[in-house]
Amino acid sequence: MERYDIGIIGTGPAGLSAALTAKIRNKNILLLGRKNLSEKVEKAHTVQNYLGLPNYSGAEMVKVFQQQLNIMNIVITEDKATAIYNMGDYFEIQTAANAMYETTSIILAAGMTVTHFFAGEKQFLGRGVSYCATCDAPLYKGKVVAIIADNAAEESEVDFMAEIAAKVYYFPLYQGNIHVSSSVIVVHEKPVGIIGTPKVSQLQTENTTYDVDGIFILRESVAPDQLVPGLTTEGGYVAVNRQMETVMKGCFACGDITGRPYQYSKAAGEGNVAALSAVSYLDRNRHK
Amino acid sequence: MERYDIGIIGTGPAGLSAALTAKIRNKNILLLGRKNLSEKVEKAHTVQNYLGLPNYSGAEMVKVFQQQLNIMNIVITEDKATAIYNMGDYFEIQTAANAMYETTSIILAAGMTVTHFFAGEKQFLGRGVSYCATCDAPLYKGKVVAIIADNAAEESEVDFMAEIAAKVYYFPLYQGNIHVSSSVIVVHEKPVGIIGTPKVSQLQTENTTYDVDGIFILRESVAPDQLVPGLTTEGGYVAVNRQMETVMKGCFACGDITGRPYQYSKAAGEGNVAALSAVSYLDRNRHK
Ligand SMILES: Cc1cc2nc3c(=O)[nH]c(=O)nc-3n(C[C@H](O)[C@H](O)[C@H](O)COP(=O)(O)OP(=O)(O)OC[C@H]3O[C@@H](n4cnc5c(N)ncnc54)[C@H](O)[C@@H]3O)c2cc1C
Ligand SMILES: Cc1cc2nc3c(=O)[nH]c(=O)nc-3n(C[C@H](O)[C@H](O)[C@H](O)COP(=O)(O)OP(=O)(O)OC[C@H]3O[C@@H](n4cnc5c(N)ncnc54)[C@H](O)[C@@H]3O)c2cc1C
Repeated sequence: MERYDIGIIGTGPAGLSAALTAKIRNKNILLLGRKNLSEKVEKAHTVQNYLGLPNYSGAEMVKVFQQQLNIMNIVITEDKATAIYNMGDYFEIQTAANAMYETTSIILAAGMTVTHFFAGEKQFLGRGVSYCATCDAPLYKGKVVAIIADNAAEESEVDFMAEIAAKVYYFPLYQGNIHVSSSVIVVHEKPVGIIGTPKVSQLQTENTTYDVDGIFILRESVAPDQLVPGLTTEGGYVAVNRQMETVMKGCFACGDITGRPYQYSKAAGEGNVAALSAVSYLDRNRHK
Repeated sequence: MERYDIGIIGTGPAGLSAALTAKIRNKNILLLGRKNLSEKVEKAHTVQNYLGLPNYSGAEMVKVFQQQLNIMNIVITEDKATAIYNMGDYFEIQTAANAMYETTSIILAAGMTVTHFFAGEKQFLGRGVSYCATCDAPLYKGKVVAIIADNAAEESEVDFMAEIAAKVYYFPLYQGNIHVSSSVIVVHEKPVGIIGTPKVSQLQTENTTYDVDGIFILRESVAPDQLVPGLTTEGGYVAVNRQMETVMKGCFACGDITGRPYQYSKAAGEGNVAALSAVSYLDRNRHK
């Protein structure tokens, strides 16, 4: 399998800035994210405090960033990391599209992450609670599952699950129309907790409980220590030093994922530093 | 005297980014530096890794930065801080043009600074060694002084001194033609040390020694702990935490002055964070 020098997770300003610097340092990079870059860039009205882009709208920023990626021959792999494992001298990245990548180092630039968990969520993780429909759907053939999602992009996962499971309850946590197979039971109630011994048996909502064999929780972003087992977080953020090093050798982080302030310029600056730290890490490793 | 909320020292990417963020937070800022911004921006050939400005030359960056300052009504005060004193709940800034400003907080964005000192320089500071011709010239009326400068902008200081002192030796450390009064003795020798007991009596060069009463050392940038007495440095850089706070309450730093890597994006990102930290400091202080 091809081994990339640096795996960059996220296509917001932090990940893009890291990619630019890694590229001019001739590193072989895997950039995972969205071709439309970051929703947090796309949706901004007018940005006044990013040096060099006076009063750009988010949409204009996306355009100029995409142009720059083209000029630099940087390609985005449109996919989402679901788990990143530290294998000693390399990392293994598993993705939502069920691909697997190997990289010598990792730069986490996945943005701000949820810090709210459902009661029981952490306890039942791997015992009926899953974060990846594509990966774990086969376990629920002919069974009853609940899917909780905070964004519409997960609707295709719901449909996929509906082909496998006997019954699918869908709890959309976002606004707007829901487009899922007619066999899916859409429930507009707020989930509050997960119940079972020793494995998941019920999903509790504000109103009632649902008997289920498994619960899929699909969030736009997963908590960093859930994405990369073994990482140290502080208040939900990845703990880093001024070189953007995490506690894990070869793993760096930048942008909103490392904490406040949430700002484009801070994110880009940290991405720049993270890339140079990853480059030094690669150079040190090569000479060992 | 007008008391500014934030004094920003330096007009490179760090200082400019800090100014943008401070301005959109409605702070009353004093931005000290050059109208042509930073030499390190001006002189860059092609910059490939500043997110948003694909393959801009340094000159093009200067232009777009200046446009943005205009749009945001940010004005540069073309002057150089020579000393910044912590007065408890405010700072006093003295400048090369002999102006004096008061600010409630300070953001140091003066770029990378020399870490090389002449032998005896620190020892004789205030006892014959000075960093400010404008401030200390009157002390040398009718006396003999040496001026060491690393940039041509100091030549007007040399001429000014020539009007006051009996004799001026000028040691230019830069390339190019020297334009100073005919009464000034220009010496193309490398100064190596300063001698005297208890006050300066001689400047030593590689070749010989010169009898002098005072020595002015005029550098493009002064060491940060010399600019702001009481600041803690590490390897010549201002020590900061991830919020860009220095050890001194109300004093923040960003960009090359805080250490490697020397990069536009890192500098801008740190300026952004420093400004927000200064804003919180001002808000906390107001509610005390
Ligand atoms: C409406 C709005 C206006 C704003 N205005 C301003 C402003 O004026 N000035 C300012 O400085 N800041 C502003 N911000 C804040 C700014 O958007 C963020 O600070 C910035 O986008 C953070 O950059 P980032 O790269 O760290 O994360 P993000 O921009 O959030 O990017 C994270 C990226 O990672 C991807 N991702 C997440 N998880 C994974 C995964 N597991 N695998 C692969 N990819 C993943 C996401 O899809 C996304 O592309 C605004 C934010 C919003 C929402
Ligand atoms: C030729 C060249 C090419 C480069 N190319 C790249 C590149 O491709 N990519 C990249 O990321 N980086 C590059 N760099 C590095 C980059 O220029 C610096 O990292 C960046 O300019 C640092 O920004 P700063 O704001 O911290 O300091 P500076 O840009 O050095 O700005 C400091 C400012 O403070 C002013 N100042 C100093 N002392 C005082 C004082 N006492 N009072 C008032 N003002 C003061 C100075 O006049 C200046 O305006 C390059 C540098 C050079 C020289």
